Amino acid sequence: MSDLESRFLQVYSVLKSELLNDSDFEFADDSRQWVERMLDYNVLGGKLNRGLSVVDSYKLLKQGKELTDDEMFLACSLGWCIEWLQACFLVHDDIMDGSHTRRGQCCWFRMPKVGMIAINDGLILRSHIPRILKRHFKGKPYYVDLLDLFNEVEFQTTHGQMIDLITTLVGEKDLSKYSLSLHRRIAQYKTAYYSFYLPVACALLMFGENLDNHVNAKETLLKMGIYYQVQDDYLDCFGDPETIGKIGTDIQDFKCSWLVANALKLCNEDQKKTLYDAYVEYERMSYEKITSSIEAHPSKEVQAVLKSFLAKIYKRQN
Amino acid sequence: MSDLESRFLQVYSVLKSELLNDSDFEFADDSRQWVERMLDYNVLGGKLNRGLSVVDSYKLLKQGKELTDDEMFLACSLGWCIEWLQACFLVHDDIMDGSHTRRGQCCWFRMPKVGMIAINDGLILRSHIPRILKRHFKGKPYYVDLLDLFNEVEFQTTHGQMIDLITTLVGEKDLSKYSLSLHRRIAQYKTAYYSFYLPVACALLMFGENLDNHVNAKETLLKMGIYYQVQDDYLDCFGDPETIGKIGTDIQDFKCSWLVANALKLCNEDQKKTLYDAYVEYERMSYEKITSSIEAHPSKEVQAVLKSFLAKIYKRQN
Repeated sequence: MSDLESRFLQVYSVLKSELLNDSDFEFADDSRQWVERMLDYNVLGGKLNRGLSVVDSYKLLKQGKELTDDEMFLACSLGWCIEWLQACFLVHDDIMDGSHTRRGQCCWFRMPKVGMIAINDGLILRSHIPRILKRHFKGKPYYVDLLDLFNEVEFQTTHGQMIDLITTLVGEKDLSKYSLSLHRRIAQYKTAYYSFYLPVACALLMFGENLDNHVNAKETLLKMGIYYQVQDDYLDCFGDPETIGKIGTDIQDFKCSWLVANALKLCNEDQKKTLYDAYVEYERMSYEKITSSIEAHPSKEVQAVLKSFLAKIYKRQN
Repeated sequence: MSDLESRFLQVYSVLKSELLNDSDFEFADDSRQWVERMLDYNVLGGKLNRGLSVVDSYKLLKQGKELTDDEMFLACSLGWCIEWLQACFLVHDDIMDGSHTRRGQCCWFRMPKVGMIAINDGLILRSHIPRILKRHFKGKPYYVDLLDLFNEVEFQTTHGQMIDLITTLVGEKDLSKYSLSLHRRIAQYKTAYYSFYLPVACALLMFGENLDNHVNAKETLLKMGIYYQVQDDYLDCFGDPETIGKIGTDIQDFKCSWLVANALKLCNEDQKKTLYDAYVEYERMSYEKITSSIEAHPSKEVQAVLKSFLAKIYKRQN
């Protein structure tokens, strides 16, 4: 484990302890234990990419200058807010998708005694984010911007999830609706906003920036998020379940990838190679396009933040 | 329908239309229709008590002075934010409780094509609240207080819901855990904060008040909320299903009321009368206690707000 990762995990312990002793609720032993177990199960266990990238981005914005203890704590806290948000989405998504495993373990709602209580647990995870923000950021000039940002991203993510869900409605297997435009909208709203834009936006706010001045960076990050989703679709079908930590169900679920998979099933080896080449070509083209939009950015520091993001996802296997 | 109710419903149409044309998401016809149907089904159809009481409270704070069109619109909008929050909770609660009917109609998640998509619909309802607040209150001196207030109340409500859920866990029918203290905590956190404190707190903020100066009013409102919950428990068992709009399932669900019901089943007519007398006595005592804590309040305007609340719930049949 890297030094940053262990610092990051220390901050988790602090935040968790604050939430479990929050004086705005009267905890008893059983309720405190429930929340603690729920947090450890759902917030931990992922790769922490989104959370850590807030700290990485903030460091790059500081051009390598050492972070103070306070800055480190705050950047990690914002990173954890994103991990909390992700946990909320995953807990709910797994119920809606009827999934069995997540991050190599049983889905939370399938654990004994949990069941549909997981719906409320997701809401508790969501409600923790403004608690963390209020405790550590209230009084900062960018406090209200942080609240607005998380609210905006939640609005977009839930709406992206909605179009994904109503597109794949049981009994509505209407392939004619599936288009690249629909795929782009699902990827952008459901994944790109919270996974790519949100971490950088958090770092920018903490650095004192006005997000209205970074519309270009936002657009580039959304493009990367869309590219990431295409990788995900590919890996859901062709990735090694051991490596990606889950058994992909996009085909069964009639997700957009169904098209690709069905094409593959019907085609011969030559045609299969054509499809594979198409993926390689897409990966190369995306990389080039995103790189040139990064290099068009006026600020070298923001360029560095964006490039570090791209390096993390290019040709990934999981 | 009263004049206020029709004004209130006009504001609903405006807010809905703004949300369905929000430029931060790319709606298509099918997604816009989905959200519109979901809003009409879940936000409307209740008694609108919580929402209307924001407007009533604000009027009382203004001591009967006429509201400007702008004030009326804003007070109604805050009222609708509470109705939206309530809708989010009800959509999720019905799934968790396995309910069949709500407000005299089929539960949303049991409607054709909805199912577990209702979980995400609940999150969409939640995400609409900060959209409404941002559009109409951003720039007001109390904007950040409104965000904090809704966040705090959501934190408390989800935690109240949690203790209710883990107390009544299937297979954990441990009556020794059931106490008046537990009942009070469930009622206070799950119901009283959002149903009683939140409407008045919204009106106070809009009136320019600092909520820190109204801790007494908050405590009185929470007491009323607890009293309201006791009424609810009583009506769940003894109320007329036609009048209360649902078939109570507290007994089947092993809720705290189970004690009362089981006592009734085992007791003779005399003992049954004793239990009934106890309820009447509780109702009278609560009324007296709450009335004296209201009369201890220094401000006549706040007293009027609190008394109008109490009058709405005393001896209610539904």
